[in-house]
Amino acid sequence: MPKTVFSVDLKKAPEQQAIKTHNRWHPDLPMVETFKPGDVFRVECYDWTGGQIGNNDSANDVRDVDLTRVHYLSGPFGVEGAEPGDLMVVDILDIGAFPESEWGFNGIFAKENGGGFLTEHYPEARKSCWDFQGIYTTSRHIPRVRYPGIIHPGLIGCLPDHKLLAEANRREAALIATDPERVPPLAAPPHAATALMGQMSGDAARKAASEAWRTVPPREHGGNCDIKNLSRGSKVYFPVYVKGGGLSMGDIHWSQGDGEITFCGAIEMAGWIDIGVGLIKGGMAKYGITNPIFKPSPIDPHFDDYLIFEGISVDEHTGEQYYLDAHVAYRRACLNAIEYLKKFGYTGEQAYMIIGTAPVEGRISGIVDIPNVCATLAIPTAIFDFDINPNSTGPTRQVSGVDVARTT
Amino acid sequence: MPKTVFSVDLKKAPEQQAIKTHNRWHPDLPMVETFKPGDVFRVECYDWTGGQIGNNDSANDVRDVDLTRVHYLSGPFGVEGAEPGDLMVVDILDIGAFPESEWGFNGIFAKENGGGFLTEHYPEARKSCWDFQGIYTTSRHIPRVRYPGIIHPGLIGCLPDHKLLAEANRREAALIATDPERVPPLAAPPHAATALMGQMSGDAARKAASEAWRTVPPREHGGNCDIKNLSRGSKVYFPVYVKGGGLSMGDIHWSQGDGEITFCGAIEMAGWIDIGVGLIKGGMAKYGITNPIFKPSPIDPHFDDYLIFEGISVDEHTGEQYYLDAHVAYRRACLNAIEYLKKFGYTGEQAYMIIGTAPVEGRISGIVDIPNVCATLAIPTAIFDFDINPNSTGPTRQVSGVDVARTT
Amino acid sequence: MPKTVFSVDLKKAPEQQAIKTHNRWHPDLPMVETFKPGDVFRVECYDWTGGQIGNNDSANDVRDVDLTRVHYLSGPFGVEGAEPGDLMVVDILDIGAFPESEWGFNGIFAKENGGGFLTEHYPEARKSCWDFQGIYTTSRHIPRVRYPGIIHPGLIGCLPDHKLLAEANRREAALIATDPERVPPLAAPPHAATALMGQMSGDAARKAASEAWRTVPPREHGGNCDIKNLSRGSKVYFPVYVKGGGLSMGDIHWSQGDGEITFCGAIEMAGWIDIGVGLIKGGMAKYGITNPIFKPSPIDPHFDDYLIFEGISVDEHTGEQYYLDAHVAYRRACLNAIEYLKKFGYTGEQAYMIIGTAPVEGRISGIVDIPNVCATLAIPTAIFDFDINPNSTGPTRQVSGVDVARTT
Amino acid sequence: MPKTVFSVDLKKAPEQQAIKTHNRWHPDLPMVETFKPGDVFRVECYDWTGGQIGNNDSANDVRDVDLTRVHYLSGPFGVEGAEPGDLMVVDILDIGAFPESEWGFNGIFAKENGGGFLTEHYPEARKSCWDFQGIYTTSRHIPRVRYPGIIHPGLIGCLPDHKLLAEANRREAALIATDPERVPPLAAPPHAATALMGQMSGDAARKAASEAWRTVPPREHGGNCDIKNLSRGSKVYFPVYVKGGGLSMGDIHWSQGDGEITFCGAIEMAGWIDIGVGLIKGGMAKYGITNPIFKPSPIDPHFDDYLIFEGISVDEHTGEQYYLDAHVAYRRACLNAIEYLKKFGYTGEQAYMIIGTAPVEGRISGIVDIPNVCATLAIPTAIFDFDINPNSTGPTRQVSGVDVARTT
Repeated sequence: MPKTVFSVDLKKAPEQQAIKTHNRWHPDLPMVETFKPGDVFRVECYDWTGGQIGNNDSANDVRDVDLTRVHYLSGPFGVEGAEPGDLMVVDILDIGAFPESEWGFNGIFAKENGGGFLTEHYPEARKSCWDFQGIYTTSRHIPRVRYPGIIHPGLIGCLPDHKLLAEANRREAALIATDPERVPPLAAPPHAATALMGQMSGDAARKAASEAWRTVPPREHGGNCDIKNLSRGSKVYFPVYVKGGGLSMGDIHWSQGDGEITFCGAIEMAGWIDIGVGLIKGGMAKYGITNPIFKPSPIDPHFDDYLIFEGISVDEHTGEQYYLDAHVAYRRACLNAIEYLKKFGYTGEQAYMIIGTAPVEGRISGIVDIPNVCATLAIPTAIFDFDINPNSTGPTRQVSGVDVARTT
Repeated sequence: MPKTVFSVDLKKAPEQQAIKTHNRWHPDLPMVETFKPGDVFRVECYDWTGGQIGNNDSANDVRDVDLTRVHYLSGPFGVEGAEPGDLMVVDILDIGAFPESEWGFNGIFAKENGGGFLTEHYPEARKSCWDFQGIYTTSRHIPRVRYPGIIHPGLIGCLPDHKLLAEANRREAALIATDPERVPPLAAPPHAATALMGQMSGDAARKAASEAWRTVPPREHGGNCDIKNLSRGSKVYFPVYVKGGGLSMGDIHWSQGDGEITFCGAIEMAGWIDIGVGLIKGGMAKYGITNPIFKPSPIDPHFDDYLIFEGISVDEHTGEQYYLDAHVAYRRACLNAIEYLKKFGYTGEQAYMIIGTAPVEGRISGIVDIPNVCATLAIPTAIFDFDINPNSTGPTRQVSGVDVARTT
Repeated sequence: MPKTVFSVDLKKAPEQQAIKTHNRWHPDLPMVETFKPGDVFRVECYDWTGGQIGNNDSANDVRDVDLTRVHYLSGPFGVEGAEPGDLMVVDILDIGAFPESEWGFNGIFAKENGGGFLTEHYPEARKSCWDFQGIYTTSRHIPRVRYPGIIHPGLIGCLPDHKLLAEANRREAALIATDPERVPPLAAPPHAATALMGQMSGDAARKAASEAWRTVPPREHGGNCDIKNLSRGSKVYFPVYVKGGGLSMGDIHWSQGDGEITFCGAIEMAGWIDIGVGLIKGGMAKYGITNPIFKPSPIDPHFDDYLIFEGISVDEHTGEQYYLDAHVAYRRACLNAIEYLKKFGYTGEQAYMIIGTAPVEGRISGIVDIPNVCATLAIPTAIFDFDINPNSTGPTRQVSGVDVARTT
Repeated sequence: MPKTVFSVDLKKAPEQQAIKTHNRWHPDLPMVETFKPGDVFRVECYDWTGGQIGNNDSANDVRDVDLTRVHYLSGPFGVEGAEPGDLMVVDILDIGAFPESEWGFNGIFAKENGGGFLTEHYPEARKSCWDFQGIYTTSRHIPRVRYPGIIHPGLIGCLPDHKLLAEANRREAALIATDPERVPPLAAPPHAATALMGQMSGDAARKAASEAWRTVPPREHGGNCDIKNLSRGSKVYFPVYVKGGGLSMGDIHWSQGDGEITFCGAIEMAGWIDIGVGLIKGGMAKYGITNPIFKPSPIDPHFDDYLIFEGISVDEHTGEQYYLDAHVAYRRACLNAIEYLKKFGYTGEQAYMIIGTAPVEGRISGIVDIPNVCATLAIPTAIFDFDINPNSTGPTRQVSGVDVARTT
């Protein structure tokens, strides 16, 4: 087992840990430790809410979660010799849950506190809890599905430099300025009050916190990409912006569908990640890199039988035609899948959470046929213990009497 | 070999065929022939331009193509007993090129005539021609790639009813009205002048042509979905809107990447499709169906090694931040892939056409992390005859001296 | 379509063709035509019996087949520059049935005329006929299974030289000599009476026929390997023994399980093969090659859900323990699978033919644990239109009233 | 984490453990614990030699291993309600190494002490040690290969009843009697001296030990099947012979090729297995079961690019022709692969150990074409960090200066 270089104690709040986590991105965050290319180490991580959500049957905690206090990241870690313009080669060697915490949660956020992809349809807080049994997971809240994990960090990347920091702050502020009162908001601007700045302290920390990125979106450095295929066994090439690189990670997902549509979003868990690091000197220019690139894992779950739903970019409520809008098209594909699954007895929330957490594939199938995008959502049929394929007699009710957790 | 129920003669223009094609969708198009559930038949199809593009080294024909005269569809075919609300079960049993025409083309349309996904970057007409050698294709215009076909109809669906016809015309007209002079236009409204209305004639045909759908976008009935996985061996469930159903198809693609990003778009070809038909009575209500659903083929090309590019929803020119815009994010992923491939010597147009035609996967990976979507483009590494993976020494020039066809 | 360089007329017997086939291997067979590296051509082939078996409901033709008159091969074809010690690189680009002959057959040979893997259990002649519908096949004799083709030449290879010819004749004669009267025989020695020697004639043909190899077994040059994964899209590297190489092929299979256990054996058909040729000069020594090596096709049917049967090397009748005998272990795995499938209503012969023709995988799982080999047979569950997985209520009868063709 | 119901302390010899292991199969072995259907539990296991082999650079321990003292099994475990004739449904939920012991070994046994599949070619003791880094393994003794684990118990099964015990003892004794002095021996008869009989003691243990099965071969109950695909995530259906079933397991493999050809055989390790149990009452008769059947895992490593070697049943030394002998054919395929890999600089022993430990596929491709079986060995090309495919320039030396461990 590689040496654990970042520990978390789930019994303590993130703020009370021996090694401080950070929940913002900033160029000046000091390295926790620096490694040589070829080194391997273990990093422990909080779940993305830092323990705000419990393994119980009430969604009150999902409703009340403080979204400025999330993404408690472990790191940053340096690599010797890493300089701006390099690529840091990161082997995600393995990921697992803690033995004492082999469960995860999926939540639908309330529209007024985060929302989600289908927040207009499912505006209220809901939760499902998932137990892990070896490579598989099941939920007491959503019966008759079981799937293998595609375990990955929702959030991983190197530190930005000051130039990139400023540029993203600029563009996101400009977006917010177009509709500052929107609920949910258009973007998440710096918010010093709840910032954890890792090993920084005092005035430096306060100053940095006032300009540090929130962790919500992915950006050029990686970050909260929520790509389910950055899974254990994958290899990622991250752009390096600061000396040492500064790799941080967190927000571990047991499993997630493409899009992470429920926002809280995957089967979220605390756990550990084994990491190997290397360098490609000058790799950004050599390969023309702007965003991270990666290679997938040979042990991602594989399925060959799928039922695939199409969606087009027409609003489901108003009938408004959108212009080549893949967001709307994918939403329609998701809604179509939910409608289908409801015919077997699932509630809408259960179906929403299934396609949010199972390893479904979301594709941009056609994006040039004005004015409609055609997006597709592919559900592996083997995750159900009954046959979901269409037949001439029609669906039979397979699920009843159980639902996801509500607020109380 | 199943009976050929729709023949095309590639030596004649579509307008001169014995059985008339149609290039519009309309509820009143008469059935060419009606089959029983369980029947199997062969349908011949023009390439989508009806022969406007030649197997040569000039892109003039791509520049000059008349986009109101495209999508010469074969059909519509009825199924006995099909009524509105049913699902027509369509087995796409096999697809092939004509022995005398084993080639296809890919085109980048000029910005002023159709454009494409990256039209701001590649605004001029270009063309590549592709030869088929058994299950594989290669191009004299784009060296050192070879891939197996994932042959599919870009366009297939059942006839809409009058209500759906009117509704889509309404919503698309409303969209156009927001910017009627835009180049390329926002949508393609009815255009009677160049309409071919199949077996209709006289006043009825003229009247229908004035309201018939253009074939450009996919809609609720299917249509121009351009889903590469509607491939030979797949099974599709189409909503039925009119008595008999009225299944039509065309626009055969030898291969295409997710998104069909060059717009002309796949490796386009003429050919034949073997179809089997069945029915699920009342299937739309039974399964809550709005758009077609389908199951993929067991012989789609399979690859396990990919190089995957990420993109986020920030404009590449202005740095403008878009709000959860999967269109922009996928464009950035595509541009990132092109930039990478150029390091091996490909021109931008060659790289654009590779990811437009090869069986790349385009995913909506994260769509809730405000304000950035994270989209990914996965390129199977095995389509190149050299190693495209990153390494510490950097890329070497593998391609030179050849380019795609330009206008002359 | 590549130029057809070898035509067969299914209405004529093989002996009456314009270009003569050969049904023996001999170094002196003249090349039909010689190609340059890089050339592509089409080769038409008889079914392996040269038309002895009919698409009907009697197994009399299987019972009466003349097994010295089989494997009518198309070729040999030369490659310019090929010399002994080279590797001929053969791209199997595509394979198909003739439009007028889209069917195939599977047969169980009578024990006294060929037998098969399970001839002690199924000693009587039986036949099933299979119709091709696009990429799929079904049989009127074996209901409720449908599978995609994994089309391949059962028999393909380059000509042996005189040394290899003599050596294999020696070793096979020595084997026969250990039990010359055995039924079925231990090997198939030269048999001039029914030999077709291609373009040879007169005394030379007669002399060669007396020593030419029968085509039954695979040997160092390839030959009747019956490897289902030498399928369309694969690439094979054949040892070259004579100047020009001399590539011949035939015995096309629509589909087959690993082992080709019924002996007549796959879904057998006539058809065409598109071939591309190349050379690796001195490749045998460079790579230490004794037998052909190959790379599989990207469009082989892919399944992820299998039901897998084990077998060990203990005789099913006598209980005799064999020593690390993979033949016996695989037979037991096959018998176990048949017994299982019979619980759903299949007759033993139907089940035998299913695992003989479907793309099942036969593995040598453990071969060192004295005295038992563990062999496994993996059946893709998706080939059935009902669920064959075990469950707590037990199997239900899904098939009845139909059986394979018997003798009359 | 499920409750650990069987612990092993790697610092103590198997004979000194708190809970006694067993290294023989016998119907009277008392259950360690009995579970309800639906229960899940963790079982710790020794490596198959019980710690005889060290993580060092000498093969002396492999040379000297006592093969009567191997397969220290953990169990037997009962399932409530299990009776003879039932099927015990076993979910192999997950498997892992102990944190303090993340390594494994592969050995070639000396011919005079166990031997192996290629013992005539590689008669001397050799060893390679493998380190685990997350899902991957590498060896300091065999450079430039890295593969993901396909972790599985080499040995798992339910207790036999007295009838099966006696029958297998009879047949194996009869085999041994045909050549009692053979080295290696033909089978492994009961051997009381080194028997560990679990919870049995005293006279009962001594009596049982004198007739108890050695664990070497797989038999009808499962046992030492060494099937690499009984991996974490698979589901196995075991025949039940005694009340309670009595499931035992051990001999964990990190990875193995089909055949486990080096005999010591896989990458062998100590570790833990998470098991879920269920029952199908009367399942043996319902489904006609003689040997276990199973369903594979969705996370087995998947590869699409292979280089595949053929072999036929002709002895490599004598040129003797064997009759449909899959053992000889597979040996030839393995030897062909080794010869090929040696061209890149590997020693024969390194190449032998690569195909013994990597997830290679060994197939019985054709088994009816008298007198030759055609067996194939498929090596995933991605396990090497250089290109092993044939090309026109020939192989280049990629490996040198390192070899597997020898005796000292």
